[in-house]
Amino acid sequence: MSQADFKNEDVPPKADDLSAWYTAVTLRAELVSYSPVRGCVVLRPYGFGLWENLQKELDARIKATGHENAYFPLLIPEHLLMKEAEHVEGFAPEVAWVTHGGQEKLTERLAIRPTSEVIIGVMYAQWIQSHRDLPVLINQWANVLRWEKATRPFLRTMEFLWQEGHTAHATAQEAHEETIRMLGVYEDFARNVAALPVYSGLKSASERFPGALETYSIEALMPDGKALQTGTSHDLGQNFAKAYDITFTDSDQQIKHVHTTSWGMSWRMLGAVIMMHGDDRGLRLPPRLAPFEAVFVPIIKGEDRAAVRRSHELASELKAAGFRVRVDDRDYSPGWKYSEWEVRGVPVRIEVGPKDLEKDSVMLVRRDKSKGEDGQKTPVPISSLSSRLREELDDVQRALFDRALTFLSTHTIATENQQRFFELCKTRAGMIDIPWCDRTQCEQEVKAQTGATTRNVRELGRAGAVCVACGEPARVQAYFAQSY
Amino acid sequence: MSQADFKNEDVPPKADDLSAWYTAVTLRAELVSYSPVRGCVVLRPYGFGLWENLQKELDARIKATGHENAYFPLLIPEHLLMKEAEHVEGFAPEVAWVTHGGQEKLTERLAIRPTSEVIIGVMYAQWIQSHRDLPVLINQWANVLRWEKATRPFLRTMEFLWQEGHTAHATAQEAHEETIRMLGVYEDFARNVAALPVYSGLKSASERFPGALETYSIEALMPDGKALQTGTSHDLGQNFAKAYDITFTDSDQQIKHVHTTSWGMSWRMLGAVIMMHGDDRGLRLPPRLAPFEAVFVPIIKGEDRAAVRRSHELASELKAAGFRVRVDDRDYSPGWKYSEWEVRGVPVRIEVGPKDLEKDSVMLVRRDKSKGEDGQKTPVPISSLSSRLREELDDVQRALFDRALTFLSTHTIATENQQRFFELCKTRAGMIDIPWCDRTQCEQEVKAQTGATTRNVRELGRAGAVCVACGEPARVQAYFAQSY
Repeated sequence: MSQADFKNEDVPPKADDLSAWYTAVTLRAELVSYSPVRGCVVLRPYGFGLWENLQKELDARIKATGHENAYFPLLIPEHLLMKEAEHVEGFAPEVAWVTHGGQEKLTERLAIRPTSEVIIGVMYAQWIQSHRDLPVLINQWANVLRWEKATRPFLRTMEFLWQEGHTAHATAQEAHEETIRMLGVYEDFARNVAALPVYSGLKSASERFPGALETYSIEALMPDGKALQTGTSHDLGQNFAKAYDITFTDSDQQIKHVHTTSWGMSWRMLGAVIMMHGDDRGLRLPPRLAPFEAVFVPIIKGEDRAAVRRSHELASELKAAGFRVRVDDRDYSPGWKYSEWEVRGVPVRIEVGPKDLEKDSVMLVRRDKSKGEDGQKTPVPISSLSSRLREELDDVQRALFDRALTFLSTHTIATENQQRFFELCKTRAGMIDIPWCDRTQCEQEVKAQTGATTRNVRELGRAGAVCVACGEPARVQAYFAQSY
Repeated sequence: MSQADFKNEDVPPKADDLSAWYTAVTLRAELVSYSPVRGCVVLRPYGFGLWENLQKELDARIKATGHENAYFPLLIPEHLLMKEAEHVEGFAPEVAWVTHGGQEKLTERLAIRPTSEVIIGVMYAQWIQSHRDLPVLINQWANVLRWEKATRPFLRTMEFLWQEGHTAHATAQEAHEETIRMLGVYEDFARNVAALPVYSGLKSASERFPGALETYSIEALMPDGKALQTGTSHDLGQNFAKAYDITFTDSDQQIKHVHTTSWGMSWRMLGAVIMMHGDDRGLRLPPRLAPFEAVFVPIIKGEDRAAVRRSHELASELKAAGFRVRVDDRDYSPGWKYSEWEVRGVPVRIEVGPKDLEKDSVMLVRRDKSKGEDGQKTPVPISSLSSRLREELDDVQRALFDRALTFLSTHTIATENQQRFFELCKTRAGMIDIPWCDRTQCEQEVKAQTGATTRNVRELGRAGAVCVACGEPARVQAYFAQSY
């Protein structure tokens, strides 16, 4: 498809203005287009290819932990949404309302789901009767809608795609274990598929999901020193069970409320992947998420199309071996194609020229390495193409992770000096790691002065420490950062 | 999960009241639940398992024919929806309108998509510039919403899941070929995955998609003699291209409008599968769509749980070989489980008892055969379980198709007698095949008198024939039937 709408828009240097670079690259690589609908973007085929791989990898992990998929209605009657007080307060300002169907004015407004705890809770109340029905372990892949002012592809859009897991358990202990298990699934996905190291932990009270007992998150650190939350897991306790009357007869014949959890990851994760791994030449996609792991660029000399034919043969063999590859046999110059696939971040380019073919070899070019860097270009005998490509892709995946991990490690700064703490928060120096008092008031003061908030917290490293921000006794260890 | 809400609701005989049987079986087999949202059902995990297999099989066919997936916004601004006159007229009465976002009243209403020609047309106008950008071959898996009065699981719901393909081409010929190609994909899916023989052909003018030049459909025949349309493919000509200004510069430097198509299959297909293949004992699922191809039922004698362990071992081996199987090791009696999995239509049940294990064998029980029928129960040595299960599943798939094909063949009735034609239409005798004049007025008269309409039409079998319904010169051969 044409890039006419952005043809004059080069990708600006990433370090100068991350935000401008990010928007330019998501459009230029044809991941998304802005739509004529306020706050909504179109996920174009190349962007959807990323989403499909996220779905495939995450869905397999969700199923491997015993969950099944289902689908619940998009619309939620207003009176049902209103039952859980904190939930309503949190989401009502963000809800889009349907008031008319055809020519008919509705007697009750219908909310487009901002999340599905409510409608799923109502169904669970019908389905669950006995302790033998528990646990209920269900996940949904769906679109949801939250009325937002700003639009940034993947990071903040009115409508977005996500998965939301919703489970019900007989005991508080089981619900807690489920919450932690799914946090672990998200962390595993982030590290091993998205090549993103993250910090996982408990959110502070002010950052908790509306209606939850506890919210856990995974948090990545972006190149501008701002944190990006890329997955959350909520222990909802019995709040929703009480609001929606989800009860069961336990083995002791007592009628009890269930304990529920919910957990979600959205296409926001793709925003983190783009922002963290990309460079001045465009995207650098982790092979496990890339729509194409490798692209063949045949080099055509005059009328000799042998390179095109050979590329298709080799691509077929690689596809049969399970690789995601494409041949770019369009009527453009090799140089144009090289930069096109660089912008699009394909992990490995396979150049097939007449001289290579004479030697029964092809040229592998790695996107993650700089031009001229050792190992960026490697001639590979065709006989070992498949095994060598597998090795290179694994190495690209590892290299992207290692680079991101080095960034996170060098930008995680522990301090016990109050003045330095405020300075680091203000200058977006990274994840600022301090003993903290765990008080909302303290967090609000830090936010007012620096823009930073807690990202998540964990057990206190050292007994007897005081809060670096305010001097009160510390209760937890916290990462502070400005955030998306 | 509990079936408490339907525990007293047995599945009534199918032949007595297909409609009552259908509703009971979809609820009893836990495919769906009614929701508190008008016109909307919940697709429960077992129903979603069917949908996932439909998606997997159809998506592979859509990709194999060169299409890519993408995702477009749920909401469509009113002024955009209003541009293609016939399309508006067809869909406006069925649209749900968003009028408020958060506390704010919108300046323009937003429609929840009833289908996506409009929003996709707007984007194609931005993306397509040159003949080199064509064809554009995109598919979307999405939820859509049409304001309906009645609710019947899968067959008629306000919100439903579907895929919608949208393509743009340089010439009318290419658009026509695409329309026919995707009709062929649907027919292939219906026959080879859903085990449903269908008639494919052109819809009459009155049954055409609003805004299309031509609509093609596949039509299945249900046991009550009513037809069910399970897929449509539309040649939209330049109607949408002109309404949404989708133009390209052709190789002759002229600016031209593109030619577009759209085509869709929804979860309605699952309704056809349920209705056609089921029997008085419940569902009978084609193996290629069934969430589980086989379920192990271990028979536990007292404290001896060897059968459970062995079932899990065998299930692991079968899973590794690519089968979708489950072990039902719940604390219920074998008899309860047999009838449970019969209602749910699992193609093959594998009984594993102590006596079987002594002989190193298991018992395969086929769901598609009647009790006591030859080949219903077969002892199979464990050493050949995998190969034998594959054969049995293939045979179940074939047997369901053959049974449906026999039904369709014996209920397709060609007649040239006017009185008999009206009688056959009125009594829902099946697909009534006649030479037809292809006039809307004639079709309306048949409908008024019998309730039947044309399902689709094809080339006239015999030159010089007259319309069996009205006596005017015949122009096409048509199937008439009452329909869902």
